[in-house]
Amino acid sequence: MSTSTKKKMLDAAVLLFNAKGYGGTSVRAIAQKADVNPALISYYFKNKDGLLEELAIDYFEGYMDVLGKAMNEVDRTYAPAAIKEVIVSLLEHQRSHAETARFIYRELTLDSMLAKEVASTYLAKEKYAFSSLFEQGIRQKHLVSFPVAYTIMQLKTMLMTPYLQKHYLTNVLYVFPHEPYFHVMHQQQVCGWIDQMTLAVKQHA
Amino acid sequence: MSTSTKKKMLDAAVLLFNAKGYGGTSVRAIAQKADVNPALISYYFKNKDGLLEELAIDYFEGYMDVLGKAMNEVDRTYAPAAIKEVIVSLLEHQRSHAETARFIYRELTLDSMLAKEVASTYLAKEKYAFSSLFEQGIRQKHLVSFPVAYTIMQLKTMLMTPYLQKHYLTNVLYVFPHEPYFHVMHQQQVCGWIDQMTLAVKQHA
Repeated sequence: MSTSTKKKMLDAAVLLFNAKGYGGTSVRAIAQKADVNPALISYYFKNKDGLLEELAIDYFEGYMDVLGKAMNEVDRTYAPAAIKEVIVSLLEHQRSHAETARFIYRELTLDSMLAKEVASTYLAKEKYAFSSLFEQGIRQKHLVSFPVAYTIMQLKTMLMTPYLQKHYLTNVLYVFPHEPYFHVMHQQQVCGWIDQMTLAVKQHA
Repeated sequence: MSTSTKKKMLDAAVLLFNAKGYGGTSVRAIAQKADVNPALISYYFKNKDGLLEELAIDYFEGYMDVLGKAMNEVDRTYAPAAIKEVIVSLLEHQRSHAETARFIYRELTLDSMLAKEVASTYLAKEKYAFSSLFEQGIRQKHLVSFPVAYTIMQLKTMLMTPYLQKHYLTNVLYVFPHEPYFHVMHQQQVCGWIDQMTLAVKQHA
Protein backbone atom coordinates (compact mmCIF):
# COMPACT_ATOMS: atom_id res chain seq x y z
CA MET A 1 0.00 0.00 0.00
CA SER A 2 1.53 3.28 -1.09
CA THR A 3 1.05 6.49 0.89
CA SER A 4 -0.48 7.99 -2.22
CA THR A 5 -3.38 5.51 -2.10
CA LYS A 6 -3.93 6.37 1.56
CA LYS A 7 -3.83 10.06 0.74
CA LYS A 8 -6.32 9.47 -2.09
CA MET A 9 -8.77 7.97 0.39
CA LEU A 10 -8.30 10.79 2.90
CA ASP A 11 -8.71 13.45 0.20
CA ALA A 12 -11.85 11.82 -1.15
CA ALA A 13 -13.29 11.61 2.37
CA VAL A 14 -12.69 15.31 3.08
CA LEU A 15 -14.35 16.40 -0.15
CA LEU A 16 -17.41 14.27 0.57
CA PHE A 17 -17.59 15.32 4.24
CA ASN A 18 -17.56 18.99 3.19
CA ALA A 19 -20.20 18.44 0.51
CA LYS A 20 -22.58 16.04 2.26
CA GLY A 21 -21.61 16.21 5.92
CA TYR A 22 -19.92 13.51 7.96
CA GLY A 23 -23.21 11.75 8.73
CA GLY A 24 -24.30 11.88 5.11
CA THR A 25 -21.17 10.18 3.74
CA SER A 26 -20.79 6.39 3.57
CA VAL A 27 -17.57 4.38 3.47
CA ARG A 28 -18.79 3.00 0.14
CA ALA A 29 -19.09 6.53 -1.32
CA ILE A 30 -15.58 7.40 -0.13
CA ALA A 31 -14.19 4.23 -1.74
CA GLN A 32 -15.98 5.02 -4.98
CA LYS A 33 -14.68 8.59 -5.10
CA ALA A 34 -11.13 7.44 -4.28
CA ASP A 35 -11.48 4.62 -6.81
CA VAL A 36 -10.46 1.92 -4.33
CA ASN A 37 -12.10 -1.20 -2.95
CA PRO A 38 -14.21 -0.43 0.20
CA ALA A 39 -12.36 -3.23 2.01
CA LEU A 40 -9.20 -1.14 1.74
CA ILE A 41 -10.78 1.61 3.83
CA SER A 42 -11.81 -0.87 6.50
CA TYR A 43 -8.34 -2.36 6.43
CA TYR A 44 -6.60 1.00 6.84
CA PHE A 45 -8.93 3.00 9.04
CA LYS A 46 -11.23 0.34 10.50
CA ASN A 47 -14.29 2.54 9.88
CA LYS A 48 -15.43 6.10 9.21
CA ASP A 49 -14.54 7.22 12.75
CA GLY A 50 -11.03 5.87 12.29
CA LEU A 51 -10.71 7.81 9.08
CA LEU A 52 -11.90 10.99 10.80
CA GLU A 53 -9.35 10.51 13.57
CA GLU A 54 -6.56 9.96 11.04
CA LEU A 55 -7.57 13.15 9.24
CA ALA A 56 -7.45 15.15 12.46
CA ILE A 57 -4.11 13.67 13.57
CA ASP A 58 -2.58 14.23 10.13
CA TYR A 59 -3.75 17.82 10.06
CA PHE A 60 -2.64 18.73 13.57
CA GLU A 61 0.70 16.92 13.43
CA GLY A 62 1.54 19.08 10.41
CA TYR A 63 0.14 22.16 12.15
CA MET A 64 2.24 21.57 15.28
CA ASP A 65 5.38 21.00 13.20
CA VAL A 66 4.86 24.38 11.55
CA LEU A 67 4.14 26.02 14.91
CA GLY A 68 7.17 24.41 16.58
CA LYS A 69 9.48 25.36 13.73
CA ALA A 70 8.20 28.95 13.74
CA MET A 71 8.57 29.21 17.52
CA ASN A 72 12.17 28.02 17.29
CA GLU A 73 13.13 30.29 14.45
CA VAL A 74 11.55 33.61 15.36
CA ASP A 75 13.60 36.36 16.91
CA ARG A 76 11.83 36.84 20.24
CA THR A 77 13.43 40.12 21.24
CA TYR A 78 10.37 42.01 19.99
CA ALA A 79 7.26 39.92 20.70
CA PRO A 80 4.78 41.62 18.28
CA ALA A 81 7.04 40.85 15.31
CA ALA A 82 7.56 37.28 16.52
CA ILE A 83 3.78 36.78 16.88
CA LYS A 84 3.19 38.05 13.36
CA GLU A 85 5.79 35.66 11.94
CA VAL A 86 4.16 32.72 13.70
CA ILE A 87 0.75 33.83 12.43
CA VAL A 88 1.99 33.97 8.83
CA SER A 89 3.34 30.40 9.10
CA LEU A 90 0.10 29.06 10.52
CA LEU A 91 -2.01 30.86 7.90
CA GLU A 92 0.15 29.28 5.23
CA HIS A 93 -0.34 25.80 6.68
CA GLN A 94 -4.08 26.28 6.83
CA ARG A 95 -4.17 27.58 3.31
CA SER A 96 -2.30 24.58 1.91
CA HIS A 97 -4.75 22.25 3.71
CA ALA A 98 -7.87 24.31 3.10
CA GLU A 99 -10.42 21.54 2.59
CA THR A 100 -9.23 19.60 5.62
CA ALA A 101 -9.14 22.75 7.77
CA ARG A 102 -12.70 23.52 6.72
CA PHE A 103 -13.95 20.12 7.78
CA ILE A 104 -11.85 19.70 10.93
CA TYR A 105 -12.57 23.15 12.39
CA ARG A 106 -16.27 22.53 12.08
CA GLU A 107 -15.94 19.11 13.73
CA LEU A 108 -14.12 20.71 16.64
CA THR A 109 -17.10 22.92 17.47
CA LEU A 110 -18.87 19.74 18.60
CA ASP A 111 -18.63 18.42 22.13
CA SER A 112 -17.17 15.13 20.91
CA MET A 113 -14.45 12.71 22.00
CA LEU A 114 -12.36 13.82 19.02
CA ALA A 115 -12.66 17.48 20.05
CA LYS A 116 -11.56 16.55 23.58
CA GLU A 117 -8.52 14.64 22.34
CA VAL A 118 -7.44 17.38 19.94
CA ALA A 119 -7.95 19.95 22.69
CA SER A 120 -5.81 18.13 25.24
CA THR A 121 -3.01 17.12 22.87
CA TYR A 122 -2.61 19.81 20.22
CA LEU A 123 -4.58 22.89 21.18
CA ALA A 124 -3.23 22.94 24.74
CA LYS A 125 0.33 23.09 23.36
CA GLU A 126 -0.63 25.78 20.89
CA LYS A 127 -2.15 27.82 23.71
CA TYR A 128 1.08 27.46 25.68
CA ALA A 129 3.13 28.74 22.73
CA PHE A 130 0.85 31.73 22.11
CA SER A 131 0.70 32.51 25.83
CA SER A 132 4.46 32.72 26.13
CA LEU A 133 4.66 35.21 23.24
CA PHE A 134 1.75 37.40 24.35
CA GLU A 135 2.91 37.42 27.98
CA GLN A 136 6.38 38.47 26.90
CA GLY A 137 4.88 41.27 24.80
CA ILE A 138 2.83 42.51 27.75
CA ARG A 139 5.78 42.26 30.16
CA GLN A 140 7.97 44.30 27.84
CA LYS A 141 5.12 46.79 27.32
CA HIS A 142 4.97 46.16 23.58
CA LEU A 143 1.42 44.84 23.71
CA VAL A 144 -1.63 46.24 25.47
CA SER A 145 -2.33 44.41 28.73
CA PHE A 146 -5.41 42.20 28.56
CA PRO A 147 -5.93 38.66 29.95
CA VAL A 148 -4.04 36.45 27.55
CA ALA A 149 -6.77 33.78 27.28
CA TYR A 150 -9.09 36.36 25.69
CA THR A 151 -6.42 37.53 23.28
CA ILE A 152 -5.81 33.93 22.20
CA MET A 153 -9.56 33.46 21.81
CA GLN A 154 -9.61 36.37 19.39
CA LEU A 155 -6.51 35.23 17.52
CA LYS A 156 -7.71 31.64 17.08
CA THR A 157 -11.11 32.83 15.95
CA MET A 158 -9.56 35.12 13.35
CA LEU A 159 -7.30 32.33 12.10
CA MET A 160 -10.18 29.90 11.67
CA THR A 161 -12.74 32.29 10.17
CA PRO A 162 -12.02 31.70 6.47
CA TYR A 163 -12.60 27.97 6.97
CA LEU A 164 -15.41 28.03 9.50
CA GLN A 165 -17.41 30.85 7.92
CA LYS A 166 -16.97 30.11 4.24
CA HIS A 167 -20.72 30.26 3.61
CA TYR A 168 -21.19 33.63 5.33
CA LEU A 169 -18.13 35.16 3.65
CA THR A 170 -19.13 34.00 0.19
CA ASN A 171 -22.87 34.59 0.31
CA VAL A 172 -23.20 37.64 2.53
CA LEU A 173 -19.93 39.55 2.44
CA TYR A 174 -18.96 38.53 -1.11
CA VAL A 175 -15.36 37.85 -0.13
CA PHE A 176 -14.00 34.58 -1.45
CA PRO A 177 -11.68 32.61 0.86
CA HIS A 178 -10.23 30.51 -1.97
CA GLU A 179 -8.88 33.54 -3.85
CA PRO A 180 -5.28 34.79 -3.46
CA TYR A 181 -6.54 38.33 -2.83
CA PHE A 182 -8.50 37.14 0.18
CA HIS A 183 -5.37 35.68 1.77
CA VAL A 184 -3.45 38.90 1.32
CA MET A 185 -6.26 40.86 2.98
CA HIS A 186 -6.81 38.33 5.73
CA GLN A 187 -3.14 38.25 6.65
CA GLN A 188 -3.05 42.05 6.67
CA GLN A 189 -6.05 42.07 8.94
CA VAL A 190 -4.71 39.63 11.52
CA CYS A 191 -1.26 41.26 11.54
CA GLY A 192 -2.88 44.71 11.60
CA TRP A 193 -4.74 43.70 14.74
CA ILE A 194 -1.41 42.86 16.42
CA ASP A 195 -0.08 46.27 15.29
CA GLN A 196 -3.14 47.97 16.79
CA MET A 197 -2.41 46.28 20.13
CA THR A 198 1.07 47.78 20.06
CA LEU A 199 -0.25 51.22 19.13
CA ALA A 200 -2.75 51.04 21.98
CA VAL A 201 0.01 50.51 24.53
CA LYS A 202 1.93 53.53 23.20
CA GLN A 203 -1.18 55.69 23.59
CA HIS A 204 -1.70 54.55 27.16
CA ALA A 205 1.95 55.11 28.04
CA MET B 1 -52.48 25.76 21.96
CA SER B 2 -50.75 28.35 24.08
CA THR B 3 -47.51 30.01 22.99
CA SER B 4 -45.94 28.60 26.12
CA THR B 5 -46.47 25.02 24.88
CA LYS B 6 -44.92 25.95 21.57
CA LYS B 7 -42.01 27.57 23.39
CA LYS B 8 -41.64 24.44 25.52
CA MET B 9 -41.21 22.32 22.38
CA LEU B 10 -38.68 24.73 20.84
CA ASP B 11 -36.68 24.91 24.08
CA ALA B 12 -36.63 21.13 24.43
CA ALA B 13 -35.49 20.80 20.81
CA VAL B 14 -32.58 23.24 21.25
CA LEU B 15 -31.32 21.47 24.36
CA LEU B 16 -31.38 18.11 22.61
CA PHE B 17 -29.83 19.46 19.39
CA ASN B 18 -26.94 20.92 21.41
CA ALA B 19 -26.46 17.71 23.38
CA LYS B 20 -26.94 15.08 20.68
CA GLY B 21 -26.73 17.00 17.41
CA TYR B 22 -29.55 17.69 14.98
CA GLY B 23 -29.19 14.33 13.25
CA GLY B 24 -29.08 12.47 16.55
CA THR B 25 -32.35 13.91 17.87
CA SER B 26 -35.75 12.39 17.06
CA VAL B 27 -39.14 14.11 17.09
CA ARG B 28 -40.18 11.53 19.68
CA ALA B 29 -37.29 12.54 21.98
CA ILE B 30 -38.22 16.22 21.66
CA ALA B 31 -41.85 15.44 22.51
CA GLN B 32 -40.77 13.42 25.51
CA LYS B 33 -38.47 16.15 26.83
CA ALA B 34 -41.16 18.82 26.29
CA ASP B 35 -43.74 16.52 27.87
CA VAL B 36 -46.14 16.77 24.92
CA ASN B 37 -47.68 14.32 22.47
CA PRO B 38 -45.43 13.78 19.38
CA ALA B 39 -48.45 14.51 17.17
CA LEU B 40 -48.41 18.06 18.50
CA ILE B 41 -44.93 18.61 17.05
CA SER B 42 -46.05 17.31 13.65
CA TYR B 43 -49.13 19.51 13.87
CA TYR B 44 -47.19 22.65 14.67
CA PHE B 45 -43.94 22.25 12.77
CA LYS B 46 -44.73 19.48 10.29
CA ASN B 47 -41.39 17.78 11.01
CA LYS B 48 -37.91 18.31 12.46
CA ASP B 49 -36.86 20.54 9.55
CA GLY B 50 -39.92 22.71 10.16
CA LEU B 51 -38.96 23.01 13.80
CA LEU B 52 -35.39 23.99 12.85
CA GLU B 53 -36.69 26.65 10.50
CA GLU B 54 -39.02 28.04 13.16
CA LEU B 55 -36.10 28.21 15.62
CA ALA B 56 -33.97 30.15 13.15
CA ILE B 57 -36.78 32.55 12.20
CA ASP B 58 -37.65 33.14 15.86
CA TYR B 59 -34.04 33.83 16.73
CA PHE B 60 -33.29 36.16 13.84
CA GLU B 61 -36.59 38.06 13.98
CA GLY B 62 -35.69 38.95 17.56
CA TYR B 63 -32.11 39.72 16.56
CA MET B 64 -33.19 42.06 13.76
CA ASP B 65 -35.64 43.84 16.07
CA VAL B 66 -32.80 44.52 18.48
CA LEU B 67 -30.52 45.64 15.65
CA GLY B 68 -33.20 47.87 14.08
CA LYS B 69 -34.04 49.48 17.40
CA ALA B 70 -30.37 50.10 18.20
CA MET B 71 -29.73 51.56 14.74
CA ASN B 72 -32.67 53.95 15.19
CA GLU B 73 -31.72 55.04 18.67
CA VAL B 74 -27.95 55.55 18.47
CA ASP B 75 -26.48 58.98 18.07
CA ARG B 76 -24.63 58.64 14.79
CA THR B 77 -22.56 61.80 14.97
CA TYR B 78 -19.57 59.78 16.23
CA ALA B 79 -19.57 56.38 14.46
CA PRO B 80 -17.24 54.45 16.85
CA ALA B 81 -19.53 55.17 19.81
CA ALA B 82 -22.60 54.24 17.74
CA ILE B 83 -21.00 50.95 16.70
CA LYS B 84 -20.20 50.08 20.30
CA GLU B 85 -23.77 50.74 21.38
CA VAL B 86 -25.10 48.48 18.64
CA ILE B 87 -22.59 45.79 19.62
CA VAL B 88 -23.69 45.90 23.26
CA SER B 89 -27.35 45.43 22.24
CA LEU B 90 -26.55 42.46 20.01
CA LEU B 91 -24.36 40.81 22.66
CA GLU B 92 -27.24 41.15 25.10
CA HIS B 93 -29.66 39.51 22.67
CA GLN B 94 -27.28 36.63 22.07
CA ARG B 95 -26.71 36.21 25.76
CA SER B 96 -30.41 35.98 26.54
CA HIS B 97 -30.80 33.33 23.82
CA ALA B 98 -27.53 31.52 24.47
CA GLU B 99 -28.63 27.93 23.81
CA THR B 100 -30.39 28.84 20.57
CA ALA B 101 -27.45 31.00 19.43
CA ARG B 102 -25.12 28.10 20.07
CA PHE B 103 -27.15 25.75 17.94
CA ILE B 104 -28.11 28.16 15.15
CA TYR B 105 -24.60 29.60 14.62
CA ARG B 106 -23.24 26.13 14.14
CA GLU B 107 -26.02 25.22 11.68
CA LEU B 108 -25.17 28.32 9.66
CA THR B 109 -21.62 27.09 9.02
CA LEU B 110 -23.19 24.44 6.78
CA ASP B 111 -23.86 24.98 3.11
CA SER B 112 -27.58 24.32 3.59
CA MET B 113 -30.88 25.76 2.32
CA LEU B 114 -31.49 27.20 5.78
CA ALA B 115 -28.09 28.95 5.77
CA LYS B 116 -28.90 30.40 2.33
CA GLU B 117 -32.28 31.72 3.47
CA VAL B 118 -30.93 33.24 6.67
CA ALA B 119 -28.07 34.80 4.69
CA SER B 120 -30.32 36.44 2.11
CA THR B 121 -33.00 37.66 4.51
CA TYR B 122 -31.36 38.52 7.82
CA LEU B 123 -27.60 38.58 7.45
CA ALA B 124 -27.70 40.73 4.31
CA LYS B 125 -29.67 43.39 6.24
CA GLU B 126 -27.28 43.18 9.15
CA LYS B 127 -24.33 43.65 6.81
CA TYR B 128 -26.02 46.71 5.35
CA ALA B 129 -26.49 48.22 8.82
CA PHE B 130 -22.88 47.55 9.87
CA SER B 131 -21.55 48.81 6.54
CA SER B 132 -23.31 52.15 6.90
CA LEU B 133 -21.77 52.68 10.36
CA PHE B 134 -18.24 51.60 9.45
CA GLU B 135 -18.25 53.56 6.20
CA GLN B 136 -19.37 56.68 8.05
CA GLY B 137 -16.56 56.17 10.59
CA ILE B 138 -13.98 55.84 7.82
CA ARG B 139 -15.35 58.84 5.90
CA GLN B 140 -15.16 61.01 9.01
CA LYS B 141 -11.67 59.67 9.76
CA HIS B 142 -12.72 58.20 13.09
CA LEU B 143 -11.92 54.64 12.06
CA VAL B 144 -8.89 53.24 10.31
CA SER B 145 -9.53 52.68 6.60
CA PHE B 146 -9.81 49.01 5.67
CA PRO B 147 -12.28 47.29 3.29
CA VAL B 148 -15.51 47.17 5.26
CA ALA B 149 -16.36 43.55 4.35
CA TYR B 150 -13.23 42.39 6.21
CA THR B 151 -14.02 44.51 9.23
CA ILE B 152 -17.53 43.03 9.35
CA MET B 153 -16.03 39.56 9.01
CA GLN B 154 -13.95 40.22 12.10
CA LEU B 155 -16.82 41.77 14.04
CA LYS B 156 -19.26 38.94 13.29
CA THR B 157 -16.64 36.35 14.16
CA MET B 158 -15.97 38.02 17.50
CA LEU B 159 -19.70 38.26 18.26
CA MET B 160 -20.31 34.57 17.55
CA THR B 161 -17.20 33.14 19.22
CA PRO B 162 -18.65 32.43 22.69
CA TYR B 163 -21.40 30.34 21.09
CA LEU B 164 -19.48 28.71 18.25
CA GLN B 165 -16.31 27.92 20.21
CA LYS B 166 -17.74 26.93 23.56
CA HIS B 167 -15.76 23.69 23.61
CA TYR B 168 -12.42 25.36 22.85
CA LEU B 169 -13.00 28.16 25.34
CA THR B 170 -13.99 25.81 28.14
CA ASN B 171 -11.52 22.99 27.60
CA VAL B 172 -8.44 24.77 26.29
CA LEU B 173 -8.56 28.38 27.43
CA TYR B 174 -10.48 27.74 30.65
CA VAL B 175 -12.78 30.69 30.12
CA PHE B 176 -16.44 29.96 30.66
CA PRO B 177 -18.94 31.60 28.28
CA HIS B 178 -21.90 31.05 30.60
CA GLU B 179 -20.36 33.08 33.44
CA PRO B 180 -21.15 36.78 33.99
CA TYR B 181 -17.42 37.59 34.20
CA PHE B 182 -16.92 36.22 30.69
CA HIS B 183 -19.53 38.58 29.28
CA VAL B 184 -17.89 41.58 30.90
CA MET B 185 -14.53 40.63 29.43
CA HIS B 186 -15.91 39.71 26.02
CA GLN B 187 -17.77 43.01 25.71
CA GLN B 188 -14.62 44.87 26.76
CA GLN B 189 -12.68 43.01 24.13
CA VAL B 190 -15.02 43.69 21.22
CA CYS B 191 -15.45 47.34 22.20
CA GLY B 192 -11.71 47.63 22.85
CA TRP B 193 -11.09 46.46 19.30
CA ILE B 194 -13.26 49.33 18.00
CA ASP B 195 -11.27 51.73 20.21
CA GLN B 196 -8.02 50.38 18.78
CA MET B 197 -9.29 51.12 15.26
CA THR B 198 -9.87 54.72 16.30
CA LEU B 199 -6.43 54.97 17.91
CA ALA B 200 -4.84 53.58 14.76
CA VAL B 201 -6.33 56.36 12.63
CA LYS B 202 -5.02 59.00 15.03
CA GLN B 203 -1.52 57.52 14.76
CA HIS B 204 -1.64 57.55 10.97
CA ALA B 205 -2.96 61.12 10.85
